[in-house]
Amino acid sequence: MKAWTGKLIRVNLTDKSIKVEDTNMDDAKLFMGGRGLGSKYLYDEIDPKIDPLSPENKLIFMTGPLTGTYATCAGRFNVVAKAPLTGTIGASNSGGHFGPELKFAGYDGIIFEGKSDKPVYLHINNDTIELKSAEHLWGKDVFETTDTLLLENEEDARVACIGPAGEKQVLFATVMNDKDRAAGRSGLGAVMGSKNLKAVVVKGNNGIGVSDKFEFMNATKDAKEKVLANGVTGIGGGLPSYGTQVLVNILNEMHSLPTHNWRTSRFEGGEKISGEYLAENYLIRNKACFACPIGCGRVIKIPDGKYKGIVAGPEYEAGWAYGASCGVDDMNAIDKANHVCNLLGLDPITMGATIACAMELRDIGVLSEDEIGGKIEFGNADSIIEWTEKTGNREGFGDLLALGSYRLAEKYGHPELSMSVKKQEMPAYDGRAIQGMALEYATSNRGGCHVRGYVVSPEVLGIPHKTDPLETEGKAGLLKLFQDLTALVDSSDICLFSTFAIGLPEISSMLRTSTGLDLSDEEFLQVGERVWNLEKLFNLEAGITGADDTLPPRLLNEPLPSGPAKGKVAELDIMLREYYELRGWGEDSVPTDEKLGELSLADKALA
Amino acid sequence: MKAWTGKLIRVNLTDKSIKVEDTNMDDAKLFMGGRGLGSKYLYDEIDPKIDPLSPENKLIFMTGPLTGTYATCAGRFNVVAKAPLTGTIGASNSGGHFGPELKFAGYDGIIFEGKSDKPVYLHINNDTIELKSAEHLWGKDVFETTDTLLLENEEDARVACIGPAGEKQVLFATVMNDKDRAAGRSGLGAVMGSKNLKAVVVKGNNGIGVSDKFEFMNATKDAKEKVLANGVTGIGGGLPSYGTQVLVNILNEMHSLPTHNWRTSRFEGGEKISGEYLAENYLIRNKACFACPIGCGRVIKIPDGKYKGIVAGPEYEAGWAYGASCGVDDMNAIDKANHVCNLLGLDPITMGATIACAMELRDIGVLSEDEIGGKIEFGNADSIIEWTEKTGNREGFGDLLALGSYRLAEKYGHPELSMSVKKQEMPAYDGRAIQGMALEYATSNRGGCHVRGYVVSPEVLGIPHKTDPLETEGKAGLLKLFQDLTALVDSSDICLFSTFAIGLPEISSMLRTSTGLDLSDEEFLQVGERVWNLEKLFNLEAGITGADDTLPPRLLNEPLPSGPAKGKVAELDIMLREYYELRGWGEDSVPTDEKLGELSLADKALA
Repeated sequence: MKAWTGKLIRVNLTDKSIKVEDTNMDDAKLFMGGRGLGSKYLYDEIDPKIDPLSPENKLIFMTGPLTGTYATCAGRFNVVAKAPLTGTIGASNSGGHFGPELKFAGYDGIIFEGKSDKPVYLHINNDTIELKSAEHLWGKDVFETTDTLLLENEEDARVACIGPAGEKQVLFATVMNDKDRAAGRSGLGAVMGSKNLKAVVVKGNNGIGVSDKFEFMNATKDAKEKVLANGVTGIGGGLPSYGTQVLVNILNEMHSLPTHNWRTSRFEGGEKISGEYLAENYLIRNKACFACPIGCGRVIKIPDGKYKGIVAGPEYEAGWAYGASCGVDDMNAIDKANHVCNLLGLDPITMGATIACAMELRDIGVLSEDEIGGKIEFGNADSIIEWTEKTGNREGFGDLLALGSYRLAEKYGHPELSMSVKKQEMPAYDGRAIQGMALEYATSNRGGCHVRGYVVSPEVLGIPHKTDPLETEGKAGLLKLFQDLTALVDSSDICLFSTFAIGLPEISSMLRTSTGLDLSDEEFLQVGERVWNLEKLFNLEAGITGADDTLPPRLLNEPLPSGPAKGKVAELDIMLREYYELRGWGEDSVPTDEKLGELSLADKALA
Repeated sequence: MKAWTGKLIRVNLTDKSIKVEDTNMDDAKLFMGGRGLGSKYLYDEIDPKIDPLSPENKLIFMTGPLTGTYATCAGRFNVVAKAPLTGTIGASNSGGHFGPELKFAGYDGIIFEGKSDKPVYLHINNDTIELKSAEHLWGKDVFETTDTLLLENEEDARVACIGPAGEKQVLFATVMNDKDRAAGRSGLGAVMGSKNLKAVVVKGNNGIGVSDKFEFMNATKDAKEKVLANGVTGIGGGLPSYGTQVLVNILNEMHSLPTHNWRTSRFEGGEKISGEYLAENYLIRNKACFACPIGCGRVIKIPDGKYKGIVAGPEYEAGWAYGASCGVDDMNAIDKANHVCNLLGLDPITMGATIACAMELRDIGVLSEDEIGGKIEFGNADSIIEWTEKTGNREGFGDLLALGSYRLAEKYGHPELSMSVKKQEMPAYDGRAIQGMALEYATSNRGGCHVRGYVVSPEVLGIPHKTDPLETEGKAGLLKLFQDLTALVDSSDICLFSTFAIGLPEISSMLRTSTGLDLSDEEFLQVGERVWNLEKLFNLEAGITGADDTLPPRLLNEPLPSGPAKGKVAELDIMLREYYELRGWGEDSVPTDEKLGELSLADKALA
């Protein structure tokens, strides 16, 4: 089989041994790569019950068969480990150029085991693989770390690293690559920090073979043409024109932009934090990842003033977390706070949402200014920056914010004010106004997350066809399809945004011609379902059960106060029952033996 | 003809017009490109008598036919203008990646005319060429300017720019590219500053055609094999192992390392500023320009302390200027001073040598500390950094240092203490101990310079065969050959260092197969001679005559105090007479009509 390199690097940080081993190609056939294959390695090699920040956890960087090829948007890789924030399986993917470079160096992935006694980084230059001291980098931010490593090694190498937040094991620390691209969610940067692993530097000069060059070029050409012709991803489309923040006005218009820690769902200041406003007043140019014809990334200039600078613009969900969620409509401050997350290596979604939760705790008098040691109140633009910096460095009250909103709210007796699922904060789409997203959040196997089954696409954008966001019927099936397809996309390791324009036939075609696997479209989709079920098994063994497939009480019990969904709550129960049934799972969410057998996971049945 | 793109950009900074025009291919046949073709355009388009810092001067960026091809070390380009420091024709070449990128964008060169009313930069992305405001960049150092321009434009673009020194028209300001590569000598950065042109940003995506692909690949393969097998340039050789600083110990051993403003020629502290010492204690890795198999560049770490940092290591001549020439043996300070030159855009050779001259003026009591406003004394490590910073920013006494050593020494009544030729400082090789270099300095058509005919190669290194450095006989012919070949190399725009390993046959072979020009080796060498004569004509018209082909009195009258050349002075007269004769020039250094006719320069005969 082609497209994979067939080689993995295994690094034992405890004894500093480095081995190159064959990729398990039997598993690659079943789980493809990236999120799927990484999860399979993790499932096979660790006990799901371990402490995520112990040396027993493993940290896996995994590319997919399409990573680094000419496939459309083929710039991604996954970081996989048991996640500190949620206790679930953690898989977070990132774009840029790091993943392709790892494949050019000749490797499908890297498995880090154990814990180094001192800070180290891994340097890969094709066949030369070395652990080097990172003591001079410890404490440095992501940009300075990256610049220093490029100067020390190859200037055109690619760097993935952690910032101070990862070193200090903030529970939502990120693994950053290419400076401002993030494997952002669930705290995988804290796992990296717990292992004393500061960075991975990779330089590669090899090509990637594909099975049928001519047919693969045809398949990629077809996919790229569809991406370029599409109203969201194509030339002049929403994403290239406005970035992901194009969603602010759309969601605000339909009163499903959660505001002030989800108390309401329409934000007065929405226009001032929109993608259109950003494009008009801040945008310098677009930025694209490897092999991407979309270019949704924003390079922006924060105008003169205390936050001035040229930085990467925030994604919609990050901008939402610091903006609507905190009641802040100062785009300078939002952009700056997002940049501080990039520097320190923090997930801006959890960071902003955790600050919003603290703001509500302060608002209802549970938290005092003495307790906080400063101000943290809805609408205070400076405070989102101050507390982001203090959280990344774990200073003062920031040391508590570093645990995320759930542990914060629980400590003060109000866990219900954490707008999270499985302890991870939900972003930017109100599940009361978009019922499909309510089910998506509840069933996401890495906690509150929007990209495990992005039914915003049909529910809001009408892609591939419009569904009624207030309706519950049919949403379970819709979501299952999106979850399985997304798992396939994340395991092929192309960008999810390409799926605004292409679907299962195009993805299968690129996979078939590159890998040489003779699978039908349905069989490729089943790879996604297999990945989804494996992740569920991991979580069940970790003690995360069907009882955790739920939502914060606010979504279940507090009707939305305005807009088309006025008076609605998230009708989770009815959708969840249907969902489990369609999944072939019991009422307790445990996959049936029959389903596992069908997915070639029979040996994985729970004891 | 291939290898050239056949297109030039012409930018009138006064009226902001931009034109793309055909490269003059008749001239390209006669002058190749880079230094030669750039000089031809300059000679044709300006009056050599103009003030170099007036809008009438033109600033020309010119690549050669080999730039950006697979030819060995084909990463160079030339900056050409009338030079502020010397009043001669100025052509300074630089490596890195800027030159190749300009050709990838589709252009052989750029001609800047006039003067902008406000700071601007030129942005080239293939067919899109725009002048943009640089007001936000004015005052910024070279690194910050480069980083900002990459963020604003394309991250993988290439940037050539000036620092504060160029803006303030320091007479030896550089044009920097790729941050730490410099078109370093004669003050071409000041011309750029005088035009209010801060930078050129270029991104290109085109290939470069060659005439006979197969034979060109054979020719380049042959050349590269020779470079890689050579003891200076090859694997494990002097340049890759120790960089150009490999020369310190060699030159010091033979007592030809000018010390304390050329008072003596052996430096006690030599070992501590040698390439071997640098490799042992500072070197992190080598760095190579485009298409270079040598990698003489140094990336070094200045250890903890006040000068700490990771920077580009100094070249031999820069290290000499701050080191032996100033009597400083503190490598931390030398490396830092060199880095400050890169940041501010200063030529470290002239800067260090000018400080050394000021140190001698101070030493003999001509300059007082009051006059200087601080300390400037032989051996004072801090002072080389302090005065470099103040010169780049033209603060206090630095405003005077900014004029170079000749104007400084002349102001204080001691022009003889400027170790310069045609007002430009000679670097690092004592012409009393290496007689060929005495003639080289005196006849260099851009003033004191080592790379217009680097006879150090035979005189010291024995390449291609050893000559006796104390002998004068035969040196005129040797130098003429080196000058003509170097002019060809600089006009093809490959790196001079390749000529340690390859000569006229290999260079001609690469030129013939890439361009399609059916010339003999001798005819290619004649291109170099033609360029040399054209430059001479420019200088004569500018008022620089044979009387200026001389050396500082110290070299002519003060015998060396020690070493193999003890008691020797530079025996210039006898060599110079032979040289003019071999050149086919009169005793007044004016080319004869016959010589000009032979070189197809008959229409250029002086009135």
